[in-house]
Amino acid sequence: MTDDKPKRRGRPRKDEPDPQTLDRLIRSGLEALTSRGYSSAGLESILRQAGVPKGSFYHYFPSKEAFGRALLDAYQLYFSARLMRCFDDTLLPPLARLQQWTELAIKGMAKHDYERGCLVGNLATETAMLPADFVAEVEAVWLDWQQRLAALLEEARAKGEIPADSDCEELAEFFWTGWEGAVLRARLQKDSAPMRRFLAHFFRYCSALKTKEETGGNHV
Amino acid sequence: MTDDKPKRRGRPRKDEPDPQTLDRLIRSGLEALTSRGYSSAGLESILRQAGVPKGSFYHYFPSKEAFGRALLDAYQLYFSARLMRCFDDTLLPPLARLQQWTELAIKGMAKHDYERGCLVGNLATETAMLPADFVAEVEAVWLDWQQRLAALLEEARAKGEIPADSDCEELAEFFWTGWEGAVLRARLQKDSAPMRRFLAHFFRYCSALKTKEETGGNHV
Repeated sequence: MTDDKPKRRGRPRKDEPDPQTLDRLIRSGLEALTSRGYSSAGLESILRQAGVPKGSFYHYFPSKEAFGRALLDAYQLYFSARLMRCFDDTLLPPLARLQQWTELAIKGMAKHDYERGCLVGNLATETAMLPADFVAEVEAVWLDWQQRLAALLEEARAKGEIPADSDCEELAEFFWTGWEGAVLRARLQKDSAPMRRFLAHFFRYCSALKTKEETGGNHV
Repeated sequence: MTDDKPKRRGRPRKDEPDPQTLDRLIRSGLEALTSRGYSSAGLESILRQAGVPKGSFYHYFPSKEAFGRALLDAYQLYFSARLMRCFDDTLLPPLARLQQWTELAIKGMAKHDYERGCLVGNLATETAMLPADFVAEVEAVWLDWQQRLAALLEEARAKGEIPADSDCEELAEFFWTGWEGAVLRARLQKDSAPMRRFLAHFFRYCSALKTKEETGGNHV
């Protein structure tokens, strides 16, 4: 990673990569990218906030782009772990697990006064400035969340919470589409109401489909 | 606007504000802000693309922020006019007018290979960097679209396309939430499929509610 840097002249390296510094870089970077986005987040202010000298950065990442990708990986690790803590909580019925996750997500948004959004949603507005394979990674993360939710919805289907003929993958895609839009609106309003109203409609949609199934579904 | 600029020494002003230059500035600015966002769109490249010397910019706008607000106004003029051309087309039933507008919007996205998104959605990811009253203007534009759609849905309700007890304002909010999310996903995939699938679900939701009404709606 640092092979192309000039050789040092024998003095001890004070800025050898260390896990604590890496952790501070990741935290500072995530704060910048979720609130300001990838393109307008300045590397200098991220380093200043992390207390890392500019020269040390390249011991950790060869470029801003590599750093951006590492931040997406870190975000995905954190996000998917939190998702699965809720989705795997078999003490609750499947749809209630989804509801519980949304409560956690709303708390997280409110904690930072709606200044921080979803890294994946932010990056989706920046595709024109990102290399195609970085965009593909963002899409892969979105798809991963969709698949995790589809699996939960399959449980909901098996337990009769949604109709037996539901397309869980499509329903999961519909959820994340609306959720990302609701996060945008919540940031504009600095309020969780758009997220809560989206959820109410999503759950009502699930119920409406169910009602339709129970009555034969041939009315439309 | 330019009162604080140094007085010129008698030579003719070649850069008096003129409508053509203003138009080029607005077009170039809209391209930059819909594809790259407000914070990372550089004023210099916008001016270069518009063929406007940097010194002339301040004859038109006192600051980048004022320019950004003027771009939001221009976008809203364009967007709401296109919306109403569809929504006021009384030859079609109300929901078909909405469908027709979405076809136009999808064509617009595809024309620029999904590199340009929605200015309002983009700005919603940048709230942490915008003054509160600019954010309030973005929210006002989103609310305006919601109200225009709510009026169309009221027509749909009056014509029996959606149930008599539908909350048209909430349904309109639900539509725009999902639409903005679908625009993000379409940009990641460079494909209209996420927008089309969102629409299919939205119209199915309207139908499901209708089926529910016809069958009494007491099943859930």
